[in-house]
Amino acid sequence: MVQLISLTQRAYLAGFLDGDGSIYVQAKPNNSYKYGFQVAPYIVLFQSQKDQENFAKLCSIIGLGYIRTRKDGILEYIIGRKDNIEKFIFLIEPYVLMKKEQIVLLKKILFFKDRIKNKEDFDALIKLIDTFRELNYSKKRKTRTLTP
Amino acid sequence: MVQLISLTQRAYLAGFLDGDGSIYVQAKPNNSYKYGFQVAPYIVLFQSQKDQENFAKLCSIIGLGYIRTRKDGILEYIIGRKDNIEKFIFLIEPYVLMKKEQIVLLKKILFFKDRIKNKEDFDALIKLIDTFRELNYSKKRKTRTLTP
Repeated sequence: MVQLISLTQRAYLAGFLDGDGSIYVQAKPNNSYKYGFQVAPYIVLFQSQKDQENFAKLCSIIGLGYIRTRKDGILEYIIGRKDNIEKFIFLIEPYVLMKKEQIVLLKKILFFKDRIKNKEDFDALIKLIDTFRELNYSKKRKTRTLTP
Repeated sequence: MVQLISLTQRAYLAGFLDGDGSIYVQAKPNNSYKYGFQVAPYIVLFQSQKDQENFAKLCSIIGLGYIRTRKDGILEYIIGRKDNIEKFIFLIEPYVLMKKEQIVLLKKILFFKDRIKNKEDFDALIKLIDTFRELNYSKKRKTRTLTP
């Protein structure tokens, strides 16, 4: 129930996301889409399985996504629907400290995603998505390249 | 400057700790201590090196510990002094959701640590410290035992 979340709960969620969350956009090859890619944005919170009960409570307060358990036992709370991502950003943005740039970039991508008119626009969107890697991964980490 | 931290900053820190922090107590073998162990409590926040600048800002707001860089590039903000740990707990405790039990246990250990009168008291303290493992590690993980 987004409406009922207090200011300190919003700040808590911003801290949680900054500490152990992830913001990213995937461009998944998919021929059923006009330009050959599905553009899928995500905000994800992580927690170890031992805190399942408390994590489930926290996620039910948020109420904008779903929990899945990874093979390695890590729990993920995945917010993937555009309207839910926008609601979550609205809640946390004023309090975020570490992932400010990721949020600005994600908002930009969501804005452009709905305004694609031609292949040129789509290529520009993909370039924007590519810049997430620079934000999310340290320079030490091997850079993955998108094969279009 | 602990006094100047707002309620939403306190809630943010609680979220950060719940997301990617750690609360634990080490009993380190050390013959210069009466009962052969140094009891060292810690509250640690983690962040990847790419967020160094923002993390340093956050840590300077807290002002109760120091940053060290691990060999794997992860930054740790370590709060280890008893008075500073108590100040930090005071700030975050009302907002913590995941690590409530760890905080209660840490407060108990800090309380008893100053009231050790004999070997029996000290053994009881070590047992209390041992229970941290059950809280901090999932059952899947191999349990380490303390060799006294």
